Amino acid sequence: MALKDTRIQVFLEELAGSSATPGGGSASALAGAMGAGLVGMVCRLTIGKKRFTNVEDELRRVLEEAEALRQQLSDLADADIQAFDQVMAAYRLPKETQEDQAARQAAIQRALQAATRVPLETASACAGVLKLAAQVIGKINPNALSDAGAAALLADAGLKGAQLNVAINLADIHDPIFVEETQEALRGVLSATDQEKERVFAYVLEQV
Amino acid sequence: MALKDTRIQVFLEELAGSSATPGGGSASALAGAMGAGLVGMVCRLTIGKKRFTNVEDELRRVLEEAEALRQQLSDLADADIQAFDQVMAAYRLPKETQEDQAARQAAIQRALQAATRVPLETASACAGVLKLAAQVIGKINPNALSDAGAAALLADAGLKGAQLNVAINLADIHDPIFVEETQEALRGVLSATDQEKERVFAYVLEQV
Repeated sequence: MALKDTRIQVFLEELAGSSATPGGGSASALAGAMGAGLVGMVCRLTIGKKRFTNVEDELRRVLEEAEALRQQLSDLADADIQAFDQVMAAYRLPKETQEDQAARQAAIQRALQAATRVPLETASACAGVLKLAAQVIGKINPNALSDAGAAALLADAGLKGAQLNVAINLADIHDPIFVEETQEALRGVLSATDQEKERVFAYVLEQV
Repeated sequence: MALKDTRIQVFLEELAGSSATPGGGSASALAGAMGAGLVGMVCRLTIGKKRFTNVEDELRRVLEEAEALRQQLSDLADADIQAFDQVMAAYRLPKETQEDQAARQAAIQRALQAATRVPLETASACAGVLKLAAQVIGKINPNALSDAGAAALLADAGLKGAQLNVAINLADIHDPIFVEETQEALRGVLSATDQEKERVFAYVLEQV
């Protein structure tokens, strides 16, 4: 069953269970999806209110982006399970003959690369959520300030959790070009995100 | 319907919706619950493996604590909705006469105090999850390292999101003793958590 159709309690039990999936990759994507949902909510709690007509157009655009990121991150939570299960399946391939071993190694490498692209996308989408939270923090209905702050914190946790998953997969990938390109892409995604999160968090604490 | 019986997709839609609940408080508690679930998983992926018999008893105790915290945080996600809805209901009480106004103010203050205790408990439970992740990080099956790292990141995000909710409620609470006691309790909960999170995150990145 797709994760999105799973009841929260059941998902939490599966997360705690002794199977490696769902694991930290899916939980990180869902943290980002919750962050995106909260960005959407703070936009909706502001749009249509007289005091905020000057930012309404901007918040409508942010809302649309946040909703797209929420959907993407919810899908990535599922994709992470599938990608990791493929890696496990590749490790279980036969390794009797030399041919077996070569085929198994190639399958493992292919599966690992696919399983690395998922958290890289998760990191990128979470960075997008964090950027939206930072963009709207000074413009929204102040009643929703702590929600925007929580959005930034959740997106940041999702981003860093995804970063750990990228790193742990890269350690087993042999193709130096793939490793280098992935590390460079990750550096680009991470750039300035720490400062953005700290800025949003400090802003909310100052305002209340 | 209780949050735990809600499907993930539906919860994310409700989070993004224009109602203030579920909001950042529930999302923070669920981030902590996911962190607790991951601590449980990394314990289960280690217990019973020959290489780790020397830490098995300790990990069994951690697993038990993590499961209790997971349940508590899942309940707190629901409690946050109920407590915030009570605050909203108090604000909607009649304010025609002076008596009305006094009764309304008293109800608002009571509801705000209750709504502040929930994120304070969430913060405390998240700090507990973070502590467990920090305790086990050097002892677990290395295959689960990134999951333990994600657990610490999620618990930290839940902790700080809860902190923002405590702060935003305290701003409207008039009883100076309640405010002071809550701030002191929060300081106690937050103490050393930043260093713990950084230590776990850095450890995982170093090991992979």
